[in-house]
Amino acid sequence: MDFSPSPRAAELTAAVRGFIDTQIAPLEPGIHADIARRRLAGEDPWAVDPRITELQARAREEGLWNLFLPAGHEGPYAERYGTHGGAGLTNSDYAPVAEEMGRSFIAPLVFNCNAPDTGNMEVLLKYGSQEQKDRWLDPLLDGTIRSAFLMTEPEVASSDASNMAATARVEGDEVVLDGRKWWSTGVGHPDCRVGIFMGVSDPDAHRYLRHSMVLVPMDAPGVRVERMLTAQGVYDEPLGHGEVSLDGVRLPVENIIAGPGKAAEIAQGRLGPGRVHHCMRLIGLSEMALDLACRRASGRVAFGKPVVNLGGNRERLAEARIAIDQARLLVQHAAWKLDTEGQAAVEVSAIKAAVPKMAQKVIDMSLQLHGGGGMSDDFPLAGAYATARSLRLADGPDEVHLGVVARAMLAPYRDAAASATEAEKSR
Amino acid sequence: MDFSPSPRAAELTAAVRGFIDTQIAPLEPGIHADIARRRLAGEDPWAVDPRITELQARAREEGLWNLFLPAGHEGPYAERYGTHGGAGLTNSDYAPVAEEMGRSFIAPLVFNCNAPDTGNMEVLLKYGSQEQKDRWLDPLLDGTIRSAFLMTEPEVASSDASNMAATARVEGDEVVLDGRKWWSTGVGHPDCRVGIFMGVSDPDAHRYLRHSMVLVPMDAPGVRVERMLTAQGVYDEPLGHGEVSLDGVRLPVENIIAGPGKAAEIAQGRLGPGRVHHCMRLIGLSEMALDLACRRASGRVAFGKPVVNLGGNRERLAEARIAIDQARLLVQHAAWKLDTEGQAAVEVSAIKAAVPKMAQKVIDMSLQLHGGGGMSDDFPLAGAYATARSLRLADGPDEVHLGVVARAMLAPYRDAAASATEAEKSR
Amino acid sequence: MDFSPSPRAAELTAAVRGFIDTQIAPLEPGIHADIARRRLAGEDPWAVDPRITELQARAREEGLWNLFLPAGHEGPYAERYGTHGGAGLTNSDYAPVAEEMGRSFIAPLVFNCNAPDTGNMEVLLKYGSQEQKDRWLDPLLDGTIRSAFLMTEPEVASSDASNMAATARVEGDEVVLDGRKWWSTGVGHPDCRVGIFMGVSDPDAHRYLRHSMVLVPMDAPGVRVERMLTAQGVYDEPLGHGEVSLDGVRLPVENIIAGPGKAAEIAQGRLGPGRVHHCMRLIGLSEMALDLACRRASGRVAFGKPVVNLGGNRERLAEARIAIDQARLLVQHAAWKLDTEGQAAVEVSAIKAAVPKMAQKVIDMSLQLHGGGGMSDDFPLAGAYATARSLRLADGPDEVHLGVVARAMLAPYRDAAASATEAEKSR
Amino acid sequence: MDFSPSPRAAELTAAVRGFIDTQIAPLEPGIHADIARRRLAGEDPWAVDPRITELQARAREEGLWNLFLPAGHEGPYAERYGTHGGAGLTNSDYAPVAEEMGRSFIAPLVFNCNAPDTGNMEVLLKYGSQEQKDRWLDPLLDGTIRSAFLMTEPEVASSDASNMAATARVEGDEVVLDGRKWWSTGVGHPDCRVGIFMGVSDPDAHRYLRHSMVLVPMDAPGVRVERMLTAQGVYDEPLGHGEVSLDGVRLPVENIIAGPGKAAEIAQGRLGPGRVHHCMRLIGLSEMALDLACRRASGRVAFGKPVVNLGGNRERLAEARIAIDQARLLVQHAAWKLDTEGQAAVEVSAIKAAVPKMAQKVIDMSLQLHGGGGMSDDFPLAGAYATARSLRLADGPDEVHLGVVARAMLAPYRDAAASATEAEKSR
Repeated sequence: MDFSPSPRAAELTAAVRGFIDTQIAPLEPGIHADIARRRLAGEDPWAVDPRITELQARAREEGLWNLFLPAGHEGPYAERYGTHGGAGLTNSDYAPVAEEMGRSFIAPLVFNCNAPDTGNMEVLLKYGSQEQKDRWLDPLLDGTIRSAFLMTEPEVASSDASNMAATARVEGDEVVLDGRKWWSTGVGHPDCRVGIFMGVSDPDAHRYLRHSMVLVPMDAPGVRVERMLTAQGVYDEPLGHGEVSLDGVRLPVENIIAGPGKAAEIAQGRLGPGRVHHCMRLIGLSEMALDLACRRASGRVAFGKPVVNLGGNRERLAEARIAIDQARLLVQHAAWKLDTEGQAAVEVSAIKAAVPKMAQKVIDMSLQLHGGGGMSDDFPLAGAYATARSLRLADGPDEVHLGVVARAMLAPYRDAAASATEAEKSR
Repeated sequence: MDFSPSPRAAELTAAVRGFIDTQIAPLEPGIHADIARRRLAGEDPWAVDPRITELQARAREEGLWNLFLPAGHEGPYAERYGTHGGAGLTNSDYAPVAEEMGRSFIAPLVFNCNAPDTGNMEVLLKYGSQEQKDRWLDPLLDGTIRSAFLMTEPEVASSDASNMAATARVEGDEVVLDGRKWWSTGVGHPDCRVGIFMGVSDPDAHRYLRHSMVLVPMDAPGVRVERMLTAQGVYDEPLGHGEVSLDGVRLPVENIIAGPGKAAEIAQGRLGPGRVHHCMRLIGLSEMALDLACRRASGRVAFGKPVVNLGGNRERLAEARIAIDQARLLVQHAAWKLDTEGQAAVEVSAIKAAVPKMAQKVIDMSLQLHGGGGMSDDFPLAGAYATARSLRLADGPDEVHLGVVARAMLAPYRDAAASATEAEKSR
Repeated sequence: MDFSPSPRAAELTAAVRGFIDTQIAPLEPGIHADIARRRLAGEDPWAVDPRITELQARAREEGLWNLFLPAGHEGPYAERYGTHGGAGLTNSDYAPVAEEMGRSFIAPLVFNCNAPDTGNMEVLLKYGSQEQKDRWLDPLLDGTIRSAFLMTEPEVASSDASNMAATARVEGDEVVLDGRKWWSTGVGHPDCRVGIFMGVSDPDAHRYLRHSMVLVPMDAPGVRVERMLTAQGVYDEPLGHGEVSLDGVRLPVENIIAGPGKAAEIAQGRLGPGRVHHCMRLIGLSEMALDLACRRASGRVAFGKPVVNLGGNRERLAEARIAIDQARLLVQHAAWKLDTEGQAAVEVSAIKAAVPKMAQKVIDMSLQLHGGGGMSDDFPLAGAYATARSLRLADGPDEVHLGVVARAMLAPYRDAAASATEAEKSR
Repeated sequence: MDFSPSPRAAELTAAVRGFIDTQIAPLEPGIHADIARRRLAGEDPWAVDPRITELQARAREEGLWNLFLPAGHEGPYAERYGTHGGAGLTNSDYAPVAEEMGRSFIAPLVFNCNAPDTGNMEVLLKYGSQEQKDRWLDPLLDGTIRSAFLMTEPEVASSDASNMAATARVEGDEVVLDGRKWWSTGVGHPDCRVGIFMGVSDPDAHRYLRHSMVLVPMDAPGVRVERMLTAQGVYDEPLGHGEVSLDGVRLPVENIIAGPGKAAEIAQGRLGPGRVHHCMRLIGLSEMALDLACRRASGRVAFGKPVVNLGGNRERLAEARIAIDQARLLVQHAAWKLDTEGQAAVEVSAIKAAVPKMAQKVIDMSLQLHGGGGMSDDFPLAGAYATARSLRLADGPDEVHLGVVARAMLAPYRDAAASATEAEKSR
């Protein structure tokens, strides 16, 4: 066993950390404050902040761009795009890089490594036709457009994909989209040009062949962003989460990714690395919250002592330290398994069930140590809380992932269960 | 022992519940939606909604007004104000009424029973001079003005009152206020005309005699609402929480309540019933969240079953049911002790430590059962969460209240501790 | 609402507390030590300790005997048995008395108020024929014999009564018992003369009419105590828990209580008050553990401070204080409901799900504060832990009781669930 | 990063697992049953079971002997002792081997890898004189004698070493031991011949130089095993935990290990690997409990379903799966850090705080799924519970280890705390 990062991972992690500390951190509070100010002043809070654009340009210059792009694709993309092509990192190597990015709300965007663009780019990379790549992947890798993923629906329990009501009917050489989606992250950004829409294309097919993914330009007739949603009071600019209606949207059949009925297969491949990224960013977010907690509780005095020395505070901090470290190791192990075995569905469900809950708890503890300030926008904790909380639901609620873990662990005992039930019935 | 409510309490509880169900509930979502709409449209989200004014008038007509006013004061106030005078309820009797109000965000305001006005009115009632009552208590009872309580400070750990930095210096026949306060609830309301400000008047006095409470008109020169704060992303209109600076505010010395140095004594009396009210409203809020959880989880289907029948959901609902019931009994017991013994500081700290935490957990569970919708503004859960979360800090953080409980329970063992330490030292 | 105990309850609670403090407490450690000594020496640890017999006699003289006997039965029993007849306490009034008894492991036996004798006596009182009463109830009330309850079975999940495999077949004027039971409390006592056995008498009847309860003399041919069981390492003398086999035990059909098929009806009536008693005794046990924790943590020093002032210890003690108080109120409320409404099945399931778990947690906390000693037999904590732990399983595991609570609370939403599932199916 | 075990670790892990499955597991229940039988029959439960002696001989033949012996010592010891010398495993490599051993209560002893002999052997190996090694280390490596560690004291809070009251006074060429120790594991075994005693040798020295460790033959005049202790009702044969009094025990000064005043230094080195072993064995114990839980809950039916499909059972199993996996990774990381950096005090405290708590919880969950049987001796769960519970206290209680973690994590913020307190004072 060897817990050291590879030299490449260590180097990029340090570079990303340095960039965040020196370039992003000094600007980030101002950027958030400006969004808040615009919102209060009735100005457009979604307008692109030129500071972010500038930061993106600098990150790209320094080769810190598209680092999420998985190993195996750096070749052609390096040739074609130069630095767009990522660094060819394995999931293990990218994990600590993603953790660093998670310490800032805007860093993922600055490095062109934010959800859902990363997942969408991966889908196009693996399943897109050359035309689809030319039209959408290139500008996404370039950071000149942004994208959304249109899956969750307001009217049904979307944790069960078989509940999906939206349709993507093929009619001749067209595909017609109808339905309503929400929690479509990214649609708040003015550069959001394309969505990957998931809908039922053949209700009578086997449930793994029932759905299709379709590239839908956000300006296609019939597509309408109904509203931007708050998550625990937070709009989460500059990307945001929207509710989108699609009403008889007609598109060329070529917009279907990999052909009709392939959505389940694509989703499976998309979600593994994406969930590792989410979890590693949450590790970074938790570290940020823990750092603030240590700082605040060391620097404020009550009842004659630094707050850190009151009651159970030191124990709580130590427990948070241990919880984060355990969670990080679990994610790194899942990433390593993804790299070495090609898939790790159970391990990925395990981290998805464990990490957001841990992050929610650590952030809540830090918030409590900040007193009233912790709930306000003076600290990034209410925002961090909203992020962690939403990830207990996004990409499948905790309970669904626990169910995946349980199914796998109980499989070897299945015969026992079957014969017990049988015996029972025959009584 | 008798767990039945008194006939008067039962009658008023039913009346309040009926009023909320038939008058408030049909309007409440629209009122909140309108605030959100105005905010997005750059209009003033703090402007008084005429529907609330109308509801207040109706509540008053039906005698559901100032019900919080403690027993013993209904006599003079009934004479002077008619229905303003409350119903002369004990804490025990008011408890279930407050619980009902807690199911709605605006009901407390509609019934003129909202914090911090209730506490401020109690202070004036018990400690105010006739002039102070005439000027401020009458319109507060009348609902024509609103008030704030200016205690917590941004620069220090305010859970320790000895940290307070704001000053209220007496200079001749004037008192001069300086300092910065935040989490001043109510200052967002356009009718907020007066604050009760707490500051150091004599830094060299015994720590129970060091502070004074001063009535400060919000339009006094030197008073400035710097900004409204969000709590977990929520502005909590129509009252809101503000940050207020006071810069050389000069007021007649008569504005000091009960004379200089009386703040600690007044605070002690103010906080007992106020915390019981907070806790009972949180019980109501938790019931609301649990009701939504049962409804949602019964009415949505995933994996072929109502969500309520999936995994541990039924157990979680039952545990929430038990947790709420235990908490309610604990609050009612504290209220009963306040009534029968005149004070119940330890019991009140116990409920303040236990109930917000319980409410936070129940609401979080309900939110999880709602999926993405739970985090949005389509349900009152994100708002409820912010309310419960903020009450783990407001009026003293959990940890401080646990400390009060511990001190009381350990008092009988103090000699053991002293002699053990002594023995240790002499080794 | 009125949280004061009735004068009768207050008086008896004080009398029981006084008796325990002055008569039982000085002897109890020696009694337990002697059992342990006998066990190690190869002597009979189950032999009756004459000190207990003596204590029983004194308790009876002081009128502290059979206090569990429910109100309504004191008349005839007072006439017939004098002080045997109990005090005619309601469940509410008996609750604080039971709490006091719970602070000692042997007090319930000393006062003739121990499980399962109390439940068995109630069954005979309510459902027994005059012959059954004459033969078994009289000596039980007199304390000259003891009894057991033979329900749980080793081979099946006994939380589901329909799993029961033991049979009680009526053959002419005999009933024939076959089966194996365990966790039969009381069979370790040399005076245990009778068991109430539950078995299937008519497998084809409705599931509420399928089982019968039969009085089985422990010396009947075919009855065999196979072994005494440890619960978390503890034999729990002087009553103990046994595994009992019944092999073709033939008894007169008159030994069936209330006739064949009545077991479910009897069990329902037996379990309400019994569970209230269990829970109140656990409250007392938790108080005992908390008292020891305060004492130990106040009287020992580490790192220069009394242990109570280290880390989160004060918070843990305060949380235990609050948890016990909440639990007590919940039990008292259930007792009051039993008294006023005649039944309180859901409330009783709620306390059965909540109280043992609370007790386990409080005792574990106290044990941790005692360091190594806490696990040893120098303190009653390992024994207390075993008691609390076993009550998370005895009389139905936590999960079954949570299920009862959930079913009740979800009943009003059942239509929503039904129509949602219907809608789902018709899609 | 690489999470694969080394080939050597994989090979030995498989060999140990195979040996346990095929040689130990078939005998283990019978061995425990026989101890219980002897105890009940008044025979000596501590007598050596010849089956264990036989298993030890076979383990040694197969080279599965002294595997705990740290890398770097295999050279001389291999030469001198042949297979006694261990396999030269790093902590990382030994970790999965120790996990396997943890699945059985007797396997550690069978492989000569049980506490406290392992720690004692390491102390002699690193700090012992040649004479000490010849007399005590050789037979310990050979498994012909056993040993104890005499540190914890009944009269003081031993988590703070400065509380230690036992003395080891040097008088001329003798050292005189006085004091009382308990929780001395191993003294129940008839072959226990030597203890490592820790006592104050110079009360006026710096606190790191105050104590000495002395080799004390268990048959030295003045040494007396006062009694064997139960831990949660369990005697934990065949090693057991004893209380030992030492009354004027005179030994040659050469019995002091590494000379007077070296106890703290020795303890530091002894505890790191020992705690890793403890934690890895607990991982194995937790896996055993989880396996039993899956098996039992799959194979029993209640309410028409396998128990595993009732309520929250699957979620609880999945959470246990995740908790164990996280804990294992944390321990492996600490082991790796011990290997690569030579020390890992903070990481070792972190695992010591986290793993026993996790194990306690997992075992308790499994026990609950077993119903009444789980508490009895029919399953190894009550014993496993006692083991996990005792490790929340042995080698330092959870809270002390959390304190170590907190101190380390707060060190970088210490200046902030100091200046805040300073500022406070100067106000």
